[in-house]
Amino acid sequence: MTTLAPVRTIGIFGGGQLGLMLGNAARPLGIMTVFLEDSPNCPASLTGQVFTSTQSDRFESMCDTFTLEFENTPLEHANHIEKNHKLFPSSHALLIAQDRLNEKNLFNELGITTVPFLSVNDLDGLRHACQQLGLPLVLKTSRGGYDGKGQFVIRTIDDIITAWDELGEATKIAPLIAEGFIDFSREVSIIAVRSQTGEIRYYPLVENTHSNGILVKTVAPAPNSDHLTWQAQQNIKKLLEHLDYVGVMTLELFVTDAGLIANEIAPRVHNSGHWTIEGAVCSQFENHIRAVAGLPLGSTDITQPSVMINIIGQFPDPSQLLAISGVHFHHYHKEERAGRKIGHITIMTGDELLNDTVNQAIECLPNRLGL
Amino acid sequence: MTTLAPVRTIGIFGGGQLGLMLGNAARPLGIMTVFLEDSPNCPASLTGQVFTSTQSDRFESMCDTFTLEFENTPLEHANHIEKNHKLFPSSHALLIAQDRLNEKNLFNELGITTVPFLSVNDLDGLRHACQQLGLPLVLKTSRGGYDGKGQFVIRTIDDIITAWDELGEATKIAPLIAEGFIDFSREVSIIAVRSQTGEIRYYPLVENTHSNGILVKTVAPAPNSDHLTWQAQQNIKKLLEHLDYVGVMTLELFVTDAGLIANEIAPRVHNSGHWTIEGAVCSQFENHIRAVAGLPLGSTDITQPSVMINIIGQFPDPSQLLAISGVHFHHYHKEERAGRKIGHITIMTGDELLNDTVNQAIECLPNRLGL
Repeated sequence: MTTLAPVRTIGIFGGGQLGLMLGNAARPLGIMTVFLEDSPNCPASLTGQVFTSTQSDRFESMCDTFTLEFENTPLEHANHIEKNHKLFPSSHALLIAQDRLNEKNLFNELGITTVPFLSVNDLDGLRHACQQLGLPLVLKTSRGGYDGKGQFVIRTIDDIITAWDELGEATKIAPLIAEGFIDFSREVSIIAVRSQTGEIRYYPLVENTHSNGILVKTVAPAPNSDHLTWQAQQNIKKLLEHLDYVGVMTLELFVTDAGLIANEIAPRVHNSGHWTIEGAVCSQFENHIRAVAGLPLGSTDITQPSVMINIIGQFPDPSQLLAISGVHFHHYHKEERAGRKIGHITIMTGDELLNDTVNQAIECLPNRLGL
Repeated sequence: MTTLAPVRTIGIFGGGQLGLMLGNAARPLGIMTVFLEDSPNCPASLTGQVFTSTQSDRFESMCDTFTLEFENTPLEHANHIEKNHKLFPSSHALLIAQDRLNEKNLFNELGITTVPFLSVNDLDGLRHACQQLGLPLVLKTSRGGYDGKGQFVIRTIDDIITAWDELGEATKIAPLIAEGFIDFSREVSIIAVRSQTGEIRYYPLVENTHSNGILVKTVAPAPNSDHLTWQAQQNIKKLLEHLDYVGVMTLELFVTDAGLIANEIAPRVHNSGHWTIEGAVCSQFENHIRAVAGLPLGSTDITQPSVMINIIGQFPDPSQLLAISGVHFHHYHKEERAGRKIGHITIMTGDELLNDTVNQAIECLPNRLGL
């Protein structure tokens, strides 16, 4: 058996809370992390050295293996690193994930069901899409949007001009994407990890609740989802293998009467997997680091049903929150700001009191997010 | 209800792996840690700023609340800090814990059974102790010993002079302690935490195996220990309340036919509680930080039976170790050196395969420590 040599320092593009949690997971494995991030006081600075873009040469010289926590890592950075170093996932995976049209085209190519969609290059194209797909539809930038930004719901013909005024400018960079509306009962996601030897492990399907496009709650495992698991695993497996992907990937899906419809992938650890820190044998963060470092994967088995609640905008009073048994608090050391993810709570009680405890925890939040 | 204000930065005396794990537990609560430690590259430097003793004024100016991870924190430092700041546990608790005679006298005062012991000031005193307690007996320095150092087993009358030659010098600082031998079947420990409001929570009793005076293995919970739990809890409760103690305390005990015999306390988080990171709802590290910061305590319930193995002297090959399902690796980022604790492994399988998995993990260790 060939043992892949473990690396000692991993370079990470981006330095947000995902970077912090990756760094925290790396250290007990004997692995240090360094970050490329323009905010020197970012959350990841608590766990490893941060280099700004003017120091990218030093960042590059620190490691032979790189990964990312920021989905919109510039492709030119990824391409540059790949010339002399290992990058997991690859720039090719990024190229797909950073562009909704690339992504959905690949989904369809691999036989993964999506909503009907069309590329939109100009106002005429948008009108055509509205005729073809019917209203309502969602017009989105194909690149750069996240947490509900860069989207416009066209409900009537009168909205077409307004939508174009808001998003048309983006076609100078890349076409827009018009997506038909679908009737879905809930949103789920599956997180999987693939090693350098091609082994794949899957976390259980989880159910996600969004508010204004931002994830606010994840229930793990997703209730009543056994019949959906096989299809979700097959979908993400096709993507992981097609892209020869190494590391953690997340696939977001809609549950419809006709089965699962793929929405998008994140080529990284994901907010809907934060519960794995306490709720899975090996967290998504540790498994990503293991994959990137060439180490064997850890178990993705769930240890106890968990619910994750994002803390958005304002922190709860820790004295009140921590008085609730089964609550795990994760403070990202970010300043409070409306709409910003500044922490999360994972709730595990190991019994039928889970929902009551979740409600108690939500009561502590200054910003309830419609939960 | 009065809410005790949470602190934002806690100062910690000492900067070893216990400091690293305390810092790791503090950060998700929104709490930073800084350390007073003369080795700038100590494990805790990975989780917070380290000040050397020449920078103790700056260390002191960083926080209003202090604690310790180094049991032998000089009493004069503790006394000095207490003049203007909060220190948990207090210098009085340190005074007891740092001196085996103080400690055992307090045990007996509180009705906690110990081995028979005598204070030894000179060679005549040692001869007297040998007559009174019988041979074999253990002669120990009353201060400064750890991991089996500063001890001499006197088996025959001929050993008395040798023992005195080795340890007699220490009487210039403090008397030695002569302890009668007892016949014990195993060693256990109990870890408890007491909050600023006087609430006490207990982790389950665990069973410890030592090799050359160094802890090598902890089994949590201790097998067949239900009948011992009440006595262990009562013993540590008396100590916590008598000392008006805040934070985590550990009590080491011998199991004999006549019940539990108290050996010593550690006024801090303890190696025999490392399994709580994965194996308890709230780890000893998080609970210590919660107590010191004036936050509510977390649950000390066990989530799954766990076994902790210390990595001493040499690291295992992580590729081999991490291929075993249910293994959690904790690398302390210390250099390899004979007899040094440089990491630990926690093993949890959630089923009857636990012992087999523990044996597989031990197989990976270059230094098996007699396990």
